[in-house]
Amino acid sequence: MTEFDLIAELFAPLAGEGAFGLGDDVALVASRAGCDLVVTTDALVAGIDFFADDPPALIARKALRVNLSDLAAKGAEPQGYLLTLMLPDGIDDAFLRAFAQGLAEDQRAYGIALLGGDMSRTPGPLAISITAFGHVPTGRMVRRGGAKAGDHVFVTGAIGDSAGGLAILKGEAQGSGRLVARYRLPEPRVSLAPALRDATAAIDVSDGLIADLGHVAEASGVRIAVDAGLIPRSPDLRALWGDSEAAIVRAATAGDDYEVAFTASRPLAGATRIGRVEEGAGVVLLDAEGREIAVARKGFTHF
Amino acid sequence: MTEFDLIAELFAPLAGEGAFGLGDDVALVASRAGCDLVVTTDALVAGIDFFADDPPALIARKALRVNLSDLAAKGAEPQGYLLTLMLPDGIDDAFLRAFAQGLAEDQRAYGIALLGGDMSRTPGPLAISITAFGHVPTGRMVRRGGAKAGDHVFVTGAIGDSAGGLAILKGEAQGSGRLVARYRLPEPRVSLAPALRDATAAIDVSDGLIADLGHVAEASGVRIAVDAGLIPRSPDLRALWGDSEAAIVRAATAGDDYEVAFTASRPLAGATRIGRVEEGAGVVLLDAEGREIAVARKGFTHF
Repeated sequence: MTEFDLIAELFAPLAGEGAFGLGDDVALVASRAGCDLVVTTDALVAGIDFFADDPPALIARKALRVNLSDLAAKGAEPQGYLLTLMLPDGIDDAFLRAFAQGLAEDQRAYGIALLGGDMSRTPGPLAISITAFGHVPTGRMVRRGGAKAGDHVFVTGAIGDSAGGLAILKGEAQGSGRLVARYRLPEPRVSLAPALRDATAAIDVSDGLIADLGHVAEASGVRIAVDAGLIPRSPDLRALWGDSEAAIVRAATAGDDYEVAFTASRPLAGATRIGRVEEGAGVVLLDAEGREIAVARKGFTHF
Repeated sequence: MTEFDLIAELFAPLAGEGAFGLGDDVALVASRAGCDLVVTTDALVAGIDFFADDPPALIARKALRVNLSDLAAKGAEPQGYLLTLMLPDGIDDAFLRAFAQGLAEDQRAYGIALLGGDMSRTPGPLAISITAFGHVPTGRMVRRGGAKAGDHVFVTGAIGDSAGGLAILKGEAQGSGRLVARYRLPEPRVSLAPALRDATAAIDVSDGLIADLGHVAEASGVRIAVDAGLIPRSPDLRALWGDSEAAIVRAATAGDDYEVAFTASRPLAGATRIGRVEEGAGVVLLDAEGREIAVARKGFTHF
């Protein structure tokens, strides 16, 4: 198929209001009365952020979901997205058809639509860049910088499943297919976005729990103390890596969780309390006796 | 420098209102009273859309300007952008410093600011994806689909300079450095955006004049007839390729011009009348006797 056929057949059916059926150069982004428009962008590169032979529908959905996770952590509900594809020669129509079907599935799941995008050939690996739009009641976006001494620290879901899945895919360990599924397909906490607006600070866990809480501590000018024993880990992950201090550190520094870590004065259904906000600076991981656990590398960085 | 140092030192100084100094996961996009928010996204890949050894400041400015060109063609004035960089190992701090300086220069020139972005390593070539935001008075965005029989067809500036510059860079010809400069650094018609709102249809010329007018003809359900002899070409380009019919066809099908082709009932300062809108379908290029000139390939496609 030509570039134009691809767009017309596979992607135009995904287009929503303001996208002009992908038949123009720009899109209009609808504003909502009483809301702020929130935007985020995250890119995935084959060989870095996913495996080139991952199922195309899952690659598409992961690329979309990592962006929805950023919106959710800020209390924003998603409304649409732009999609940029950089395609190597090896990508055929069947791949793109499955990719588009994956997008369609998640559009239904999250009530969002495609607004536009761009497509380019590349001599490099497949790369996907998505820009997602969401809305939050005016002034209610949750920043990184609002944590206050005395707040509690919480995290949604379980931490480390994705890292366990990656280890299995790399052949480093044998374990549950559910962990692999969690690596390939994050579950962004979109439904928690409205409740998260009561948090004092929040961030989505992509670099690693400790690293991301470090971003919150820095932006807020506080110290965050996390009790290692309180960090929620799934039975599958505990079966894979055990319950040693090293296993907990590994889970808390691996990244790709796409859960939400936040600080608040009160608990929230669906989240586990893991620590507290204190005066000071930095983030520390504590054992059952309150001793600091050394963490050599707090999370993932690209550099 | 680490990813975080790079962002803090080079890119945070470029951040505008709503970007939170690039210190959060999302940005807020300001809405303007009485305006629609317009968004566009265009990506450039080294080896495809620019040369890897082009000056980094010019690569940055081209990546930004091709997006501003899309906004301008729709009658929209720019306000901000998101920047996604996929960086191969060979890109060093000096490259990124020059790249950021190029962005700073164009931010001043166009009165826009950085709102956010993403940075990733890639085993492939340098790739840059930009999403640009602009505003247009409510309901005044210029679509592709509004051309009517009886309208005139216009184009801003001169056509083919960029293609001439590319031919020089490829060593296919020797010619003016001004043509090379036009290839490396488009001049989007941002200042014409308000006046362009009186156009019935418009498109920025990126695929090639004939191909892009073909998009307008298709979206509008009309036929567009272009007089080859009226297509504006610069003295430098005429010195490079001459005035043969083949030279005109080459200029009109090469792309990367980032001028605006539009249809309107009246002329506009800064634009040249090149043809007319008729009943029918498709786009034709006519010689001085009104005979159709065969055009084998109407413009650039990635596929």
